Amino acid sequence: MRLSRYFLPVLKETPSEAQIVSHRYMLRAGMIKQASAGIYSWLPMGFKVLRKLENIVHEEQAKAGHIAMLMPTLQSADLWRESGRYDGYGEEMLRMQDRHGRDMLFSPTAEEMFTDVFRSNVTSYKDLPLTLYQIQWKFRDEIRPRFGVMRGREFFMKDGYNFDLTKEDALHAYNRHLVSYLRTYERMGLQAIPMRADSGPIGGDYTHEFLVLADTGESEVFYDSEITDLTFGDREIDFDDKAQCQAVLEEFTSRYARTDETHDEAEFAKVPQDRQRTARGIEVGQIFYFGTQYSDAMGAVVQDGEGNKVPVHMGSHGIGVSRLLGAIIEASHDDKGIIWPEGVTPFHCGIVNLKSGDAEADAACEAIYKSLTALGLEPLYDDRSERAGAKFATMDLIGLPWRITVGPRGLKNGVVELTSRRTGESEELPPETAIERIAQIYGKVSG
Amino acid sequence: MRLSRYFLPVLKETPSEAQIVSHRYMLRAGMIKQASAGIYSWLPMGFKVLRKLENIVHEEQAKAGHIAMLMPTLQSADLWRESGRYDGYGEEMLRMQDRHGRDMLFSPTAEEMFTDVFRSNVTSYKDLPLTLYQIQWKFRDEIRPRFGVMRGREFFMKDGYNFDLTKEDALHAYNRHLVSYLRTYERMGLQAIPMRADSGPIGGDYTHEFLVLADTGESEVFYDSEITDLTFGDREIDFDDKAQCQAVLEEFTSRYARTDETHDEAEFAKVPQDRQRTARGIEVGQIFYFGTQYSDAMGAVVQDGEGNKVPVHMGSHGIGVSRLLGAIIEASHDDKGIIWPEGVTPFHCGIVNLKSGDAEADAACEAIYKSLTALGLEPLYDDRSERAGAKFATMDLIGLPWRITVGPRGLKNGVVELTSRRTGESEELPPETAIERIAQIYGKVSG
Repeated sequence: MRLSRYFLPVLKETPSEAQIVSHRYMLRAGMIKQASAGIYSWLPMGFKVLRKLENIVHEEQAKAGHIAMLMPTLQSADLWRESGRYDGYGEEMLRMQDRHGRDMLFSPTAEEMFTDVFRSNVTSYKDLPLTLYQIQWKFRDEIRPRFGVMRGREFFMKDGYNFDLTKEDALHAYNRHLVSYLRTYERMGLQAIPMRADSGPIGGDYTHEFLVLADTGESEVFYDSEITDLTFGDREIDFDDKAQCQAVLEEFTSRYARTDETHDEAEFAKVPQDRQRTARGIEVGQIFYFGTQYSDAMGAVVQDGEGNKVPVHMGSHGIGVSRLLGAIIEASHDDKGIIWPEGVTPFHCGIVNLKSGDAEADAACEAIYKSLTALGLEPLYDDRSERAGAKFATMDLIGLPWRITVGPRGLKNGVVELTSRRTGESEELPPETAIERIAQIYGKVSG
Repeated sequence: MRLSRYFLPVLKETPSEAQIVSHRYMLRAGMIKQASAGIYSWLPMGFKVLRKLENIVHEEQAKAGHIAMLMPTLQSADLWRESGRYDGYGEEMLRMQDRHGRDMLFSPTAEEMFTDVFRSNVTSYKDLPLTLYQIQWKFRDEIRPRFGVMRGREFFMKDGYNFDLTKEDALHAYNRHLVSYLRTYERMGLQAIPMRADSGPIGGDYTHEFLVLADTGESEVFYDSEITDLTFGDREIDFDDKAQCQAVLEEFTSRYARTDETHDEAEFAKVPQDRQRTARGIEVGQIFYFGTQYSDAMGAVVQDGEGNKVPVHMGSHGIGVSRLLGAIIEASHDDKGIIWPEGVTPFHCGIVNLKSGDAEADAACEAIYKSLTALGLEPLYDDRSERAGAKFATMDLIGLPWRITVGPRGLKNGVVELTSRRTGESEELPPETAIERIAQIYGKVSG
C-alpha cells in the first residue's frame, strides 16, 4: 500500500478521553474512531489487524477440529425465556421490539442459539463429539464503557460450544480448547497465562481465564514465576489424542496462577518465595465446562449406545477478538508508539523514502515495494513529500516491526537501512539483502 | 473435511415455508436455519460460502483501490437527525434505547457514518480521491420478510462510499465501481447485467442496478439480447485510467437494459425485434452517484486548489453479499439440488467412498483426500457408512462441482470415476489423473 493512497488519519495530539496507552495509540494511529460511548468505527488499519486476528482464530479452531458458523446478532427473546436468562440478564442486555412488537435483543452471548441449532439437528451420540463456534459482533450495555476496545459495548468475540456424550468427552473438548487457545495467543505474539477462574453463578470446577500480563490490566494476578517460562512453541499436537491434550493442560495449569477472584493466600504461600509474583493482567479469553445446564433446560438430548435419551455435556469457550487489539498494544509498545508482533502486524514492513521526488530514491523505493509485494508481503510505502522526521514519527507510532529507509546518500554506497522497531537497531545493507532478510522473517522464499 | 466430522444437517423433506428454490435448497442442504422471521443462522456450509463471497468482494475492491474498514452495527440516532433521515426512514429502521435512554438504531445503511468519518479527518483535496467501504451486517425491518436470504431482515452487505473533489472524479469512481462489480460477479460465476435504475427520492441520473436473470426474480426486465454475450473476462484493467473505465461502462451500458421501474416502451421498440427480450431478474447490487447531498447536509468539505472550501461529490455502491447466495442458487441448480460455480463452491470436490470399511477403498479415498489437501484444495470426503444412493443424493443436493467416486470394482481396474455435477458426465480415470484434472480446474499445480 502506498501511504498517499491509504486512509491513515494519524492524530498529532493525544486525545484527552483516553486513559490507557492502547486506547491512546489506537486513536492516534488512526485505527479506531469512537462512534458513540463504547462503540467504535474500525478505520482501515484497525480493521486490517482485527481481520488478521479473526483469521488466526479461524485457522487454529479448524486445526482443533472445531467448526465455524455464524449466528445473527439479533435474536428473539423466546429462546432466552426458555433458558430462564431473559429476565435474569439485567440491564447489560440491549432489548428492543420489532415493528410487529416482538421482543428481541442484541446477542451478548449465544449459548441458547447454539443449543437450539444442536437440538434441532442432532439426535444420536454417533454425531458426537461436536464443537461449533462463531466469531461475531456482540453487545453488552456496560454502564460505564471505557478503555477503548478493551471494555466497549459492541465487541467482536469468538464463542465456541462443545456438545459431548459424557463428562469425560466434554473435558477433552475443554482441554482441546485450552491447547488451541495457547497456540492462538502465541501466534499473536502474546503470552496468555491460563488461570483458574471463578465460575460465577453457574458453578462448576472447570474454568480457566487466559490473562496477558500488563500494567493496565483490570485484574490483580498471583503466579509462580516458572509459568512465564512455558511456551507452546511449534510442537505438533494431535487434537484427538486425549492423553496428549491432558498433558498440555497439566503442564500449563499445575503451577499456581490465579486472579484476585480465586486467589488463595495459603496455596500461594506454598510457592517458593523467590518465585511468587504479583502483577496485573488483562483477560483475553475463557474456557468453561458447565455440564448439562443448558441441555437440561432446553432439551438438548441424544440417544446413547443403549438407546437412552441423555442430555449432552456442554461447555463454552470465548476469545475477545476486538479486545485483543488493546491487549497486544498494552503488552507491546514504547513511548513512541505501538510495536506490532510479526504475526499480527497490519503491514509487514514500512518503506520510508527520505527524498520523495528524487528520481533515484523513488526508483529504489518502487523496486523494493514491488519485490516485497511479489513475495506475497504487504509493505506500507511512505511516498508522501513529508520531511523525514514526520515519516519516522508516523512509522514509530503505527509500529510496523521492520522499516527500510531509502535515501540518496545511502544509495550512492549501494545500501539502504533496515531497522527493527522493537530494538531500534539499524543495519546498512544492499536493497536485495534487506528484502531477503524481510522475506526470511516472514517465512517467504526470496528470489 | 471428512463428512463424519462435519456438521451438515441435510433435510430429507422439503420445508413447507420455502417458496423459491434457493430457499428450499439452502434449508435442505443444511446451509441456514431460520432463527426468527427474516433472520437466519448460517450453518457451517452456508457460512463457508458466505465467507468466500466476502473474500472475493474484498479482493476485487482492493484491486480497484478501495479501502476496507468497518462500522459498528449499532449507531446513535444523532447522525441520522443531522442528515434528516432519522424521522423519514420509517418503520424499516429498527430503533431502540440504551440503558441511559439514548436513541440508537441498527444500521440499515451507512452514508451518515462514512460521511462523518470523512469530515472528521479529511480537509484537503490532496487526500482525494478516496473510496472507503465495509462489509457488515445490516438490518431492515421488512414488514413481510420472505424468500430466505433473498429478502431477509438481517443481511450482510458491502457498502462503499466515494469522496471526490469534482463531479468528473466522482463519475470516474462510479465507473470504477461498475468495472469492479462486473469482475466480482463473474468470479462468482454470475452474469449480472447493469441496468439503468430508478434513483428514487434522492434523484440524479447516475445509478445502475446489477441484475441476475432468474425465473424467480422480483423484477421484470427488458433488454437487448446482445447484452448477454458480453463478458468481462480476464482483461487487464488500470483502475486509474479514466478512459479505460469509461469505455467499459459504455460497452456494458449502451444497449437497452432496464427493469420495470425505468422501462420505456418507445426506447425498447428501437431494439431490433429479434433481439428484444423480457425476463425476470434478481437485483444483486447497485451503484449510485448522488453529488453533494450528504456533504452539504453534514458539512463534508475540503479545500480545493484555490483555497476554497467545497463540498465533496459522493456516491454509494452496494453489493448484497448474503442475498448473492440465493441469487447464485436461483441461477445455478437443477431438480437434484444446487450446482455451485467453481469460484464459490464450499468444497472443491466431493469424494464418495462406495464401500466404507473396505480396506482398499478406504485407503484409496484417504490417498486422494490427502493429495487434494496437499494441493491446497478442500475436498469433502463422504466417509460415512451409508449406502451409495444416499451419498450420491447428498452430493447432488449440496452441489459440489466435481465428485470422485471410489469403489472396489473400479479400483481392481485401477480407476475411479470423475463426475461433473453440471453435466452429469462421468469418466473413468486413474486416481492420479483425476487429481490432476481437479488441480487444473482450480489452477493448482499438481505433482
